Amino acid sequence: MTPWNQVAIIGTGLIGGSLGLALRRRGLAMRVVGVGHRQGTLDEALRRGAADTTSLDPLEGVRGSDLVVLATAPSLFRDILQRARPGLEPGAVVIDVGSTKADVVRTCEALMPDGAAFVGCHPIAGSERRGVTHASADLFEGATCVVTPTEKTPQEALERVIATWLGLGMTVRRLSPDEHDRLLAEVSHLTHLVAAALVQAAGDKAEPLIGPGWADTTRVASGDADLWRDILMSNAAEVANALEGFERVVAAFREALRQGDGVRLQSLLAESKSRRDRLIRKKEGR
Amino acid sequence: MTPWNQVAIIGTGLIGGSLGLALRRRGLAMRVVGVGHRQGTLDEALRRGAADTTSLDPLEGVRGSDLVVLATAPSLFRDILQRARPGLEPGAVVIDVGSTKADVVRTCEALMPDGAAFVGCHPIAGSERRGVTHASADLFEGATCVVTPTEKTPQEALERVIATWLGLGMTVRRLSPDEHDRLLAEVSHLTHLVAAALVQAAGDKAEPLIGPGWADTTRVASGDADLWRDILMSNAAEVANALEGFERVVAAFREALRQGDGVRLQSLLAESKSRRDRLIRKKEGR
Repeated sequence: MTPWNQVAIIGTGLIGGSLGLALRRRGLAMRVVGVGHRQGTLDEALRRGAADTTSLDPLEGVRGSDLVVLATAPSLFRDILQRARPGLEPGAVVIDVGSTKADVVRTCEALMPDGAAFVGCHPIAGSERRGVTHASADLFEGATCVVTPTEKTPQEALERVIATWLGLGMTVRRLSPDEHDRLLAEVSHLTHLVAAALVQAAGDKAEPLIGPGWADTTRVASGDADLWRDILMSNAAEVANALEGFERVVAAFREALRQGDGVRLQSLLAESKSRRDRLIRKKEGR
Repeated sequence: MTPWNQVAIIGTGLIGGSLGLALRRRGLAMRVVGVGHRQGTLDEALRRGAADTTSLDPLEGVRGSDLVVLATAPSLFRDILQRARPGLEPGAVVIDVGSTKADVVRTCEALMPDGAAFVGCHPIAGSERRGVTHASADLFEGATCVVTPTEKTPQEALERVIATWLGLGMTVRRLSPDEHDRLLAEVSHLTHLVAAALVQAAGDKAEPLIGPGWADTTRVASGDADLWRDILMSNAAEVANALEGFERVVAAFREALRQGDGVRLQSLLAESKSRRDRLIRKKEGR
């Protein structure tokens, strides 16, 4: 694909910083402008090669950019777009990288000036660590990116955005914003809640006995609490539904235990093992 | 400590094999006899250096051994001890490495001939992988081992067993068998059930969207279903109690979501993050 002339990345944290690194490394952007509200973070983004230039002002940052990436907490998107909007060029494409889509797409589409296009994106990559110091040009390689076009999305903008994610080594899936949120509630948002609840379920006396299983199972619970409150609140109904589905499965395990039904318990455990083994094999392309 | 003269390891899988490797590597055993019921596994244990000699017969394997390690599934301990018992030397120490202790200690103590001592042990190390091919001499390094003596445990045997685990680089904790089972239910057995339930909570359409968080959170659910049925069934009451405690925490998260209470949700998430961060720092000795 033709590289973007100038990409403004608003929010140069783990995802924004990794995206800057990856776009520059793969020649998908002629120039990357890192935009943020802390000079220290922007300096670090420059130093690590995640941006060519930086700006503290979203309006200044988007001027001359044909691609604008919203990579802050989604709760800030409205504010940022209101400030940056007068600087958006005709033909500019705006994308985000947030973890929920229905709210975000509705908000951002409504704020696009004539001639600019919004395409909701969710690259399913990342870690519980934050900040550009953990950014990596390979973060997206082999992972999946969901794009969530609507009837308002211009075909050309959509195709260029898809080509960009493909160019970063990602598998791209198209879903409606609502479907994205429903499915992500089941695999990602639910996972976070369950891990967070598990951390609190152990009593203080059990603390010295945590092992590698506990550490892995709870890893995502070390993610940023403000970021996850935003994600979960912006998809609250779907997440609560997914949680209730999970609670029904837990109750089936509990009943097998309470009834001393080892055959039933083994069959539930074997079903989980077999499904997980299959999904991980598929994910790892084996 | 004076090394054991001969250690019989009954069951040369991941844990038994790693123990053989580690005891030999660190000079804690003059000789290791690998005992199992499949010649192929025993040959592999020999090839990898997890044993000096092997036997298909527990009775033969324990003859001349001053330490006997039960490292099969705990459901087999009774059978194995009944067969091996006539071969146990006066002064021999028998330990196990099972994940539950109350049932195991009761069963094994009752089967000790005069002059032989049983010490329940649970090295909290391992992985969802099985078999001697994944064994490692470093598996125990830095991890915790719980020993569960009772009023029947001879002091000298207990001290020698503790010195052995310390010699493998482990931190040793003493708990009663019942307390072990109650605390492990909260951190390990509960973790397994929750991971297994989470695997089943996602619908089929969500499968392509699993990411690194889901993969880590569910990792332990790929453990062997028969082994985990045994662990969970032999500690069923404590695990069911721990599961109910977990369900109450989950309900608190769900209520915050359903009520749209972002402040409460953030505070629950922050509490989990802060506790996990603290426990992982402590575990990693930072």
